[in-house]
Amino acid sequence: MTASNFPDVVANLKWHDHAVTRTMREELNGHRGCTLWYTGLSGSGKSTLANEVSAALHAMGVRTYVLDGDNIRQGLNRGLSFSEEDRRENIRRIAEVAKLFSDAGLVTGAAFISPYREERALARSLQPDTFLEIHVKADLATCEKRDPKGLYAKARAGEIRQFTGIDAPYEEPQNPEVVVDTAKNSLADCARLVVHALKQRRLIP
Amino acid sequence: MTASNFPDVVANLKWHDHAVTRTMREELNGHRGCTLWYTGLSGSGKSTLANEVSAALHAMGVRTYVLDGDNIRQGLNRGLSFSEEDRRENIRRIAEVAKLFSDAGLVTGAAFISPYREERALARSLQPDTFLEIHVKADLATCEKRDPKGLYAKARAGEIRQFTGIDAPYEEPQNPEVVVDTAKNSLADCARLVVHALKQRRLIP
Repeated sequence: MTASNFPDVVANLKWHDHAVTRTMREELNGHRGCTLWYTGLSGSGKSTLANEVSAALHAMGVRTYVLDGDNIRQGLNRGLSFSEEDRRENIRRIAEVAKLFSDAGLVTGAAFISPYREERALARSLQPDTFLEIHVKADLATCEKRDPKGLYAKARAGEIRQFTGIDAPYEEPQNPEVVVDTAKNSLADCARLVVHALKQRRLIP
Repeated sequence: MTASNFPDVVANLKWHDHAVTRTMREELNGHRGCTLWYTGLSGSGKSTLANEVSAALHAMGVRTYVLDGDNIRQGLNRGLSFSEEDRRENIRRIAEVAKLFSDAGLVTGAAFISPYREERALARSLQPDTFLEIHVKADLATCEKRDPKGLYAKARAGEIRQFTGIDAPYEEPQNPEVVVDTAKNSLADCARLVVHALKQRRLIP
């Protein structure tokens, strides 16, 4: 065959002509692609809950992936500082990657403090129909007692500045799809609420 | 239950403690996660081939996703210029996202000119065991004749500068896993070569 086969092929180079569509990927998986956006204070249990939900879904045959500080900060977002501009860019990139993962047909967890309503609104705006905001609540005293990374101690000692909940604001979600209180409920119970929200919206069977 | 349940949970916050591991995702999918990195001149057929391969794999029940200019440039990499620094950053981010998709258990296509050996070496270094470099060859005359986006015409007219193949170099891969010549072979034949390379390496059954 010769290059003359290629005119058809070349016409294919647009997004909407992708040979495998999102719908085809979702049909193969038996569920929709979507993003579970976990927001809350440091120590509220976002990553832990995201992984617990992922495990529950995986056991049901649902394809999942979790984006969190551990796989983003030293990779895609390496080099970003904690300046206001870089924090916005940090969340913007995560939101764009979450959108790609939803498009790929996975139930995608994104576990980041994301303290500002504006940045969460941006993340939602990229995929309004497949975005669930999960407010991972725990009172500050509980989070500070857990202090999994010792960051509250450093913030109290003035070694870290602009720490959410101490000297930087956390803007609570006004209309999240799910609210869980990890200070009062077990991890398993919190995970069940999230899985239920997915079923209710027919994102998973 | 009370917050006293959380110490165990909090200890979970490291990458290696993720509740669902890569191996578990790959077992659910029945194949490995990996990245097919398509490199070649504009008009060589990278995106087209990536989509063709994706379609062939999808028909076999393999989970796939394709990263290309259409879903990256206006999203994750919006705002990057064509300066040397930004072009490097462009490829770096794509390489990091491809690594995440491989980790998620998908056979990930990444179709970008990526003209420099150094940037492709970086992409490979992020996931050396699951990275296949596909050199999508087509002689410059053929690519220029296809000119799917009219970019060669603009480059020849001097409206675009530093265009790969015209006034910027394309550094051919020295040791790619697969070489396909889209000027001499059909799209289906080129796709078969890529699928074969995956089978040979036992990345897919």
